[in-house]
Amino acid sequence: MTRSAIFHALHHADEPLILPNAWDFGSAAFLAQAGFPAVATTSLGVAAAAGRPDGTGSTRAETLTLARQLGRLPIPVTVDVEGGFSTDPDEVAEFCAELAEAGIAGVNLEDSRDNTTLAARETHGAIITAVKARTPELFVNARTDTYWLGTDRDSTLARAQHYEKCGADGIFVPGVTEAAEIRALTEALTAPLNILFSPNGLPVAELAALGVRRVSTGSLLYRAALAAAVRTVRAVSSGGPLSPDIPPYTEILRLIN
Amino acid sequence: MTRSAIFHALHHADEPLILPNAWDFGSAAFLAQAGFPAVATTSLGVAAAAGRPDGTGSTRAETLTLARQLGRLPIPVTVDVEGGFSTDPDEVAEFCAELAEAGIAGVNLEDSRDNTTLAARETHGAIITAVKARTPELFVNARTDTYWLGTDRDSTLARAQHYEKCGADGIFVPGVTEAAEIRALTEALTAPLNILFSPNGLPVAELAALGVRRVSTGSLLYRAALAAAVRTVRAVSSGGPLSPDIPPYTEILRLIN
Repeated sequence: MTRSAIFHALHHADEPLILPNAWDFGSAAFLAQAGFPAVATTSLGVAAAAGRPDGTGSTRAETLTLARQLGRLPIPVTVDVEGGFSTDPDEVAEFCAELAEAGIAGVNLEDSRDNTTLAARETHGAIITAVKARTPELFVNARTDTYWLGTDRDSTLARAQHYEKCGADGIFVPGVTEAAEIRALTEALTAPLNILFSPNGLPVAELAALGVRRVSTGSLLYRAALAAAVRTVRAVSSGGPLSPDIPPYTEILRLIN
Repeated sequence: MTRSAIFHALHHADEPLILPNAWDFGSAAFLAQAGFPAVATTSLGVAAAAGRPDGTGSTRAETLTLARQLGRLPIPVTVDVEGGFSTDPDEVAEFCAELAEAGIAGVNLEDSRDNTTLAARETHGAIITAVKARTPELFVNARTDTYWLGTDRDSTLARAQHYEKCGADGIFVPGVTEAAEIRALTEALTAPLNILFSPNGLPVAELAALGVRRVSTGSLLYRAALAAAVRTVRAVSSGGPLSPDIPPYTEILRLIN
């Protein structure tokens, strides 16, 4: 099975796919080594790593560079490409084809633009259609940001169903947290529903019971990583204890050599 | 005071400089925001982030890109440039001048080559001389890898004193852990001594009492970050508690927007 086929299958297993989001090669390789069956990227982490704004289409080069590194991993990798870094469906399809050629199994494509407005559903749908026509094996996770932007929430299901019709392999609705709203989506959709894990939201077991097929962590792991860095150097300063699970230097060398 | 002058002064304060090593813009900006007066980079972290081998001179481009991002921070930043990415002293001096122009306050320059051999002391000294002649304000931390490579340990002090004579502003001896050996170095050297913190070595308070002026964390924070990523997604999977210090999404956005 190709990594892409494996990735599709992971959305239809007994348990939801728990998808950790890496921000660089080292974090992705370490998560793969820890046993996770697939890894995603976080656009916030990639943007922060490069010191650029997130969600504004300014990290195309960094995203491609990272994808080429992650395509070397033995497990499926899905890449957050924001809105596709272009308003031209053919250009987005070309970009996604480059990712697939680099060994990437899937992409997230969002319908928000510049973190402020939603693209019209037909506009975003045309991008999905173009990507799937060009690279049918790529898992296209269509993200609608109605909840996240707090605008036009009533259109969520209609958008999701339109993206499905355009060929989306999965639907991602970050920000939805109410059980009844999640259930309404999983009942109405054919494609697997992806929910963003929230520390204040429902636990994975409840999301699974609601029919959610994929739970991703967004920027959570990058944020946890930054917190751990500060916590660790403070412990060094004060002579306090370090976390016992910090891997040795040699384990990181093994990931890259 | 320039960031470079501030960085020099931090080596002559009442307490040793505790220098956290960042691996990307986000981690450096987050450490700066947490109140650390200066930030370093880790070549292992930078190499792992890019999926390239460490210590083999293959991350020149990534190091320069990161340095240009970090030069925007309000605090002094020192960059690990391995052996200088060239055997030609003028080329290393040119590279370090580029870093200084980008706003970087200091560099680490190591005398090991390809993680396996030590450059002759005169060879490495000539590089230090060239860098200081070209960019006098840059804090040059001369690292000798006698302990780390486990070869030619008896030459450590002679190397350090030669690098001092060539203009090094600081001496870095990673791998030395015995109190008597550390004290012998601080007593014989004029330049501030930098020790790599080791979880199995002496705590900072004891290093301070031995005359150590700078304690860096090397790859420790990057390794702690990877451990935190895995720990966090495992907690998500199992419904376990998350670390309470994970910053919100908006705090990361503030770092980059």
